[in-house]
Amino acid sequence: MDLSAEDKHRLECFLVNIQQYSASFLGYPSAKDFDFSLFKDFLHYPINNIGDPFKEASFKVTSHEFEREVLKDVAEMLRAPEGNWWGYVTNGSTEGNLYGLYLARELFPNGIVYFSQASHYSVSKNVHILNMRHIMIRAQDNGEMDYEDLTDTLKIHRDVPAIIFANIGTTMTEARDDLKKIQSILDDLAISNRYIHSDAALCGAIAPFLDPRPAFDFADGADSIAISGHKFMGSPIPCGVVLAKKEAVDRIAQSIAYIGTLDTTITGSRNGLTPLFLWYSIHLLGVEGMRRRVNKSLAVAAYATEQLNEIGVTAWRNLNAITVVFPSPSVDLQQKWQLASAADQSHIIAMPGVENSDIDCFVNDTKCYLRQTCSN
Amino acid sequence: MDLSAEDKHRLECFLVNIQQYSASFLGYPSAKDFDFSLFKDFLHYPINNIGDPFKEASFKVTSHEFEREVLKDVAEMLRAPEGNWWGYVTNGSTEGNLYGLYLARELFPNGIVYFSQASHYSVSKNVHILNMRHIMIRAQDNGEMDYEDLTDTLKIHRDVPAIIFANIGTTMTEARDDLKKIQSILDDLAISNRYIHSDAALCGAIAPFLDPRPAFDFADGADSIAISGHKFMGSPIPCGVVLAKKEAVDRIAQSIAYIGTLDTTITGSRNGLTPLFLWYSIHLLGVEGMRRRVNKSLAVAAYATEQLNEIGVTAWRNLNAITVVFPSPSVDLQQKWQLASAADQSHIIAMPGVENSDIDCFVNDTKCYLRQTCSN
Repeated sequence: MDLSAEDKHRLECFLVNIQQYSASFLGYPSAKDFDFSLFKDFLHYPINNIGDPFKEASFKVTSHEFEREVLKDVAEMLRAPEGNWWGYVTNGSTEGNLYGLYLARELFPNGIVYFSQASHYSVSKNVHILNMRHIMIRAQDNGEMDYEDLTDTLKIHRDVPAIIFANIGTTMTEARDDLKKIQSILDDLAISNRYIHSDAALCGAIAPFLDPRPAFDFADGADSIAISGHKFMGSPIPCGVVLAKKEAVDRIAQSIAYIGTLDTTITGSRNGLTPLFLWYSIHLLGVEGMRRRVNKSLAVAAYATEQLNEIGVTAWRNLNAITVVFPSPSVDLQQKWQLASAADQSHIIAMPGVENSDIDCFVNDTKCYLRQTCSN
Repeated sequence: MDLSAEDKHRLECFLVNIQQYSASFLGYPSAKDFDFSLFKDFLHYPINNIGDPFKEASFKVTSHEFEREVLKDVAEMLRAPEGNWWGYVTNGSTEGNLYGLYLARELFPNGIVYFSQASHYSVSKNVHILNMRHIMIRAQDNGEMDYEDLTDTLKIHRDVPAIIFANIGTTMTEARDDLKKIQSILDDLAISNRYIHSDAALCGAIAPFLDPRPAFDFADGADSIAISGHKFMGSPIPCGVVLAKKEAVDRIAQSIAYIGTLDTTITGSRNGLTPLFLWYSIHLLGVEGMRRRVNKSLAVAAYATEQLNEIGVTAWRNLNAITVVFPSPSVDLQQKWQLASAADQSHIIAMPGVENSDIDCFVNDTKCYLRQTCSN
């Protein structure tokens, strides 16, 4: 059996398109400096990491052993309490965030979720799916949560458990909510029934290497953290890691006879390749390699800001952010460079794989457009 | 940069393990007659089918065009109402079922979900996540819903919208709930506020080719259907398709400025490879190829039943099922053949890739064990 010549040709053309589109996007948080084709032989087998990665099950075609190592490495990076964490490799941060909020709801069924208006749209979707009471908090101009508004709002609901959904890198400006400030607000109001989830989709793999280190992880008070695998870490398939304190997870464990395991994941059948990809990246780079990768992105972001400022574009970025924000250029330019735009703002994200030369091309395009000499 | 020799060696050994384990399992519903290594070049690029497959978005590194073709082919197979359906490629049927139930809840916030006790454990998990009122219905011995119990239970709640979660192939016995019977029960009780979701994880790709055709799809009254891509269709990565009537989906659409699209999916960032895999399978096999594959599995299942009966094992299967059920053998045998077991019952599933010769080996092992002459 074989594909028709026409179908083969379509796939070939599609691959060329994907190559071109991958080369030209600057506005989305996907690394593009990877190659996982060495895993091609695994595409013959039905690998399925069904259920809990820490439990032996009767189905053996899994990459659970690699998944556990990935989780352990990420747990160390995010300073999870030793021996008191659990997690799994998800299909992406939407699932990881759903999981964190689900845990929070199980612990505090009547809790209110507080999240800033700069949060990703999936947060509203998730609290709606989970049927959770929630209040949106104002954001500051830089995208960070408005702590005064948080304080004022919490004050009115001191009798209700507080579930804080913190953004560690918002989608538009890569703003990071500060867990130390949030903790201190909760302390001041003596709200002890609290749960903090960090949505570190983008910055979970960046923040551990920053100086000063942002207050975002378990040591800073998070009860659960979601990070993406296909963003800074780089994976050809959307994925992520969710970690939570074990005592919270144990509350939702459910005995499952069928697969001979306790399945506390959202998904059930799970991708077995993505844990291998994450394992490969971590082992290929090592901690020092990850740090170098972060520094490289910071340098490219600094360069982009400078170059855009130089041609009169009011570009800016948050402290130690790899996201450069500026007023939206023409629709043509937005499309050509696949820029994500909202409220007349666009951004470039200096992900691994984006080079100064890419910035030069974009800046040149923008300059042409500003001078109206461009064919774009 | 390269992996250490030790790490490379580990991956090589792991591939060998995966090959061996894939060859020996009989108890899980994963096809193993595929090879997707021709897609290796796509493992260089951050393909991400973020958002709605039918909406143009600013991010272009997607396989949306292939996804739409897959959805169209599956919609035809499941007799979706022309021009009045919507869907997307999911990470598996747990997500597809969550989506169906989510739609049902949005349409009928106070509805009660009815599902049989033979349902997959993820159903309980899903109704819990969605915070939906639910009642478990007794199952008949063959795993099919007990329609009398359904009738009696619905009678008591005629004032409440009914959300029926129908199993089209239960996990243990591949029993199919009959949508015609369910519709007629609802009609008799004059319950017009109703929603039927078909969990056709396994049988969605089998039932369209059976004679008599089971009553399970849109033409039979389903409002949404989830099927798995990594089960009968065959994919090295868990995935699936969920389809629903468009008028229901439109109710939950939410305007999303950020990605310039209306994102009604559960996931957000989505796998771009699995739609390509499903497209490839459908184009490689064609409708006739799919029919042949179903017939082959039915023949292997019939052979397994006969052979087991012949050595005195009381094996049986539902009409036109590819799942053969029998009393659980020894733990050693269960582990060797990776059999899923529950309540002292085990099963073999004659998935594509399982041959009569595999059945012979298993039957031989069982015979040895029954005569206690075996080293297993």
